[in-house]
Amino acid sequence: MKEKKEISLEKPCSVGKAMGIIKGRWSFPIIRALMQETLRFKELERAVFSINTRMLVKELKELANEGLITRKAYATVPPTVEYSLTEKGRALRPVIAEIEKWSANFL
Amino acid sequence: MKEKKEISLEKPCSVGKAMGIIKGRWSFPIIRALMQETLRFKELERAVFSINTRMLVKELKELANEGLITRKAYATVPPTVEYSLTEKGRALRPVIAEIEKWSANFL
Repeated sequence: MKEKKEISLEKPCSVGKAMGIIKGRWSFPIIRALMQETLRFKELERAVFSINTRMLVKELKELANEGLITRKAYATVPPTVEYSLTEKGRALRPVIAEIEKWSANFL
Repeated sequence: MKEKKEISLEKPCSVGKAMGIIKGRWSFPIIRALMQETLRFKELERAVFSINTRMLVKELKELANEGLITRKAYATVPPTVEYSLTEKGRALRPVIAEIEKWSANFL
């Protein structure tokens, strides 16, 4: 049994700060899908297994607010909307790669 | 504007599978704290900024169910409980390291 220890954070650690923005559960699969290419809403819905429409709308809004993705609308009939990663979003590639390695080893 | 594409996943991608287990928002900061050492509940509560007791209880239960951490109780008065990473949990170190790098560069 170890010594008791007093550690108290005044502010979030860097991982806490990052996950406060990224959240993770759905955002990482969405970011992974967009790593390969720009996608439309319906394509994203199909590319992220078992996400529902309401959740995808919410996640895309939050990811755009955090500057991880961009949303581009085209005045087609009906209107077309495409989602792409920003530089900040694309920089998560190494995180995604490590999650994929862990998943291959342990799941 | 790009060509429309039909991609349909029959099962989650490896990132989706992993995040379905890890979830992320709180689990990564908890795992980061436990990377350094075995910790007790109160120590973990202080080490993970702004997590509340109810959330930490829930997260620790899920992380133990998924085999990412172990829970060891000692028959002291009052009882002492210590949490440690399993091999599966410790193997997330490269993911945590990449999140820390991203956070340092972008936040």
